[in-house]
Amino acid sequence: MDYSKLSLHVESRRDAFLEELGSILRIQSISADPSKKGEMVRCAETISEMMRSVGIENVKLFETDGNPLVYGDHIHAAGKPTVLIYGHYDVQPVDPLSEWETPPFEPTVRGDDLYARGSTDDKGQLFIHLKAFESYKQLSEDLPINLKYIFEGEEEIGSIHLEPFIRSHRDLLKADVVVISDTAMYGRDMPTICYALRGMAYLELTVENAPIDLHSGSFGGAVANPANVLADLIARLHDERGRVTIPHFYDDVLEVPAEERAEIARLPYSDEEFLRQSGAVAPYGESGYSSNERLWIRPTLDVNGIYGGFTGEGAKTIIPARATAKISMRLVPNQSSEKILDLFAAYIRQIAPPTVKTTVKKMHSGEPALTPIDHPAVRAASESLETVFGKKPFFIREGGSIPEVLTFQEALGAPVILLGFGLPDENSHAPNEHLYLRHFFDGIKTAALLYDKLARK
Amino acid sequence: MDYSKLSLHVESRRDAFLEELGSILRIQSISADPSKKGEMVRCAETISEMMRSVGIENVKLFETDGNPLVYGDHIHAAGKPTVLIYGHYDVQPVDPLSEWETPPFEPTVRGDDLYARGSTDDKGQLFIHLKAFESYKQLSEDLPINLKYIFEGEEEIGSIHLEPFIRSHRDLLKADVVVISDTAMYGRDMPTICYALRGMAYLELTVENAPIDLHSGSFGGAVANPANVLADLIARLHDERGRVTIPHFYDDVLEVPAEERAEIARLPYSDEEFLRQSGAVAPYGESGYSSNERLWIRPTLDVNGIYGGFTGEGAKTIIPARATAKISMRLVPNQSSEKILDLFAAYIRQIAPPTVKTTVKKMHSGEPALTPIDHPAVRAASESLETVFGKKPFFIREGGSIPEVLTFQEALGAPVILLGFGLPDENSHAPNEHLYLRHFFDGIKTAALLYDKLARK
Repeated sequence: MDYSKLSLHVESRRDAFLEELGSILRIQSISADPSKKGEMVRCAETISEMMRSVGIENVKLFETDGNPLVYGDHIHAAGKPTVLIYGHYDVQPVDPLSEWETPPFEPTVRGDDLYARGSTDDKGQLFIHLKAFESYKQLSEDLPINLKYIFEGEEEIGSIHLEPFIRSHRDLLKADVVVISDTAMYGRDMPTICYALRGMAYLELTVENAPIDLHSGSFGGAVANPANVLADLIARLHDERGRVTIPHFYDDVLEVPAEERAEIARLPYSDEEFLRQSGAVAPYGESGYSSNERLWIRPTLDVNGIYGGFTGEGAKTIIPARATAKISMRLVPNQSSEKILDLFAAYIRQIAPPTVKTTVKKMHSGEPALTPIDHPAVRAASESLETVFGKKPFFIREGGSIPEVLTFQEALGAPVILLGFGLPDENSHAPNEHLYLRHFFDGIKTAALLYDKLARK
Repeated sequence: MDYSKLSLHVESRRDAFLEELGSILRIQSISADPSKKGEMVRCAETISEMMRSVGIENVKLFETDGNPLVYGDHIHAAGKPTVLIYGHYDVQPVDPLSEWETPPFEPTVRGDDLYARGSTDDKGQLFIHLKAFESYKQLSEDLPINLKYIFEGEEEIGSIHLEPFIRSHRDLLKADVVVISDTAMYGRDMPTICYALRGMAYLELTVENAPIDLHSGSFGGAVANPANVLADLIARLHDERGRVTIPHFYDDVLEVPAEERAEIARLPYSDEEFLRQSGAVAPYGESGYSSNERLWIRPTLDVNGIYGGFTGEGAKTIIPARATAKISMRLVPNQSSEKILDLFAAYIRQIAPPTVKTTVKKMHSGEPALTPIDHPAVRAASESLETVFGKKPFFIREGGSIPEVLTFQEALGAPVILLGFGLPDENSHAPNEHLYLRHFFDGIKTAALLYDKLARK
């Protein structure tokens, strides 16, 4: 594929592409809103039609107990790799509606951006892959690789039906690499590949003493207070350098190569901007690491919720019968969530005082994910981005988990590339969601170029 | 008053006394139940009638925005002390009703006890003072002291109208000593005087960071977590010996004389019984003190409630915007609640990290109370108990506060004697409330003897 031809083609179709995207953005496919059930189906059907019209074959809706999954493929490149493209057509709710400058389901171009719910998360990015397919086909009859598509309508409500579908349709979805465009680039004109996600180990720590709340006048000072003991236990989970004190917690953490840390260090970062985005008082974390390193390459432990005793208005003088903390640990590649949960429980058994009953309840967990930077598919994506954006892409990690990444990796045994074209400040879950148009069109070019690059690896 | 005559008289009236008490116990004066408003008034009127019939004068209902207060007096002993008797005619709710062996408002004698809601808390004990008055009058025309009575109908719902009434009726209630029979003896056949109460300083400690909950995938490990910081701060409020670490916290605590500690030590106590009553796993508290000492002569600090972040079912991966603990300190005589709250706030300012915002909000407080053991009125009560029970009374303290004690002390400047005839296991707030009849009749004798003893001091 000649890049200048491709680029000219995409630029010449700007208005048509925006109009077509608008027809999907106008559909109110809010998965969290039960009254929008009809809109969900209409959106799945509209996208199916669009897939057929660009030449994708075997397009099919798979019904679930929730919203349908949309599948399609184009498999005519014998002996060449197969790429599975994932996206989602459901969107976040729109409240508070009054804060939208233009209505969320009336796509509007203002300045360099297209405003609409779903523009960046994820209809716009899903649409990039349809137009990449169409553009490639129009410019060069034969596709150099095989393509499969799976689009879901429940990403914003936990992807509950996607995981079992993937596991029960391994053959249908079998691929050499999975490409997901549902994340953000590090910044404007900063082509980005995300190659690692943190995992998660979630638990509840409960401290109990008497079966009922005790009057603190009758017993205060003479029995252990579960809320105080819980606070003590939590305090003992970190040392003064911000490190987690659970024995063997860091044993499986891989040393991150100097060149990867250098790559992170070259990313633009300012405390001021970090504090603006977070709203926090100050950066804080494990000594010896930058904010991005704390988020991406270091495991952490946070209390997500804590409760016990009297929590209403005013004052009640009781010793709580019990107090509970929800605690999660973000894990980095090579750590095992099951092992970490066991280490946590063992440490608590070691330090919990005998004056109370202490229990650790394991909740959900997910493994960290890593696609090696030097994987051929990553290199292919990198080269495509470099051609389109005119600069080497930035390699970043992500501090959170994306459950479907793990499911694809585990069920299909295929590496996942997170090739996001959004931006961190595009309000993906807030009013005035928008999509930077430059990245939208460059995304189409990048996705089309990727076919060639992958075919050659 | 000849004691054997008095004793014979009371014993001869057993059945009549129980029947009369029954007529009050049958009234469903549950102050927490708005539908029982009529019963509250009926109970106040029935008690007024009973007061008049025994010879108490100037009996009057004082209306409040809640339930009426009942006043009465008998002031004919010029130059002699005046005693104000306090009691309450409202009772606790009765649920769960199914757990009562006999209906709560059908007084029933079983074995040595009278079963009914209000039998020990506090109608039975209030009634003791009416029958003491009646018995004394019947045996000896003239009363050697002056008596005033104030009975409220809102003790179980916070005595909201009592305090302003006392403050606005100082002259009416003016007395040399206040006697309250609304507490328990330490055990069966253990005549008891309670001479000290702990005070209270209550506050809310809040730690905040970002204005909204943050996604722990996006920020976990790179900003201070308010719930973790709160836990750290709470953990630093005690040392490993169970002592409060706030600087100067113990400065004003009076050394308790060896003889008072010896008095506490001679009280029957077993860990087994303490654990049965509390339901706790083990005794725990400040090193170097017994359970009773921890409760009575040592100040303590307890978390009464704690909350922050996600507290629903399941898992949510957020860094809480804020976390709050309700914390109260029980204070011992000579400590000042205001000073202690200031010391707490100063310590938090000293140890709170600069990575969060920390605030201390002062809530309610109350001063500790102490009536010296060698006060003439205490000695008079002690002698009365010794005559009736045949043994020296036990002197105990109470770990909690009784707000009306402080109000009487402050507003009237009179010492308060807690001369309780209940027992700790008489279910005062639970199903099957009962009153040990031996103590009921001996209480009447004690209260009547007290007139002579107080007149002579």
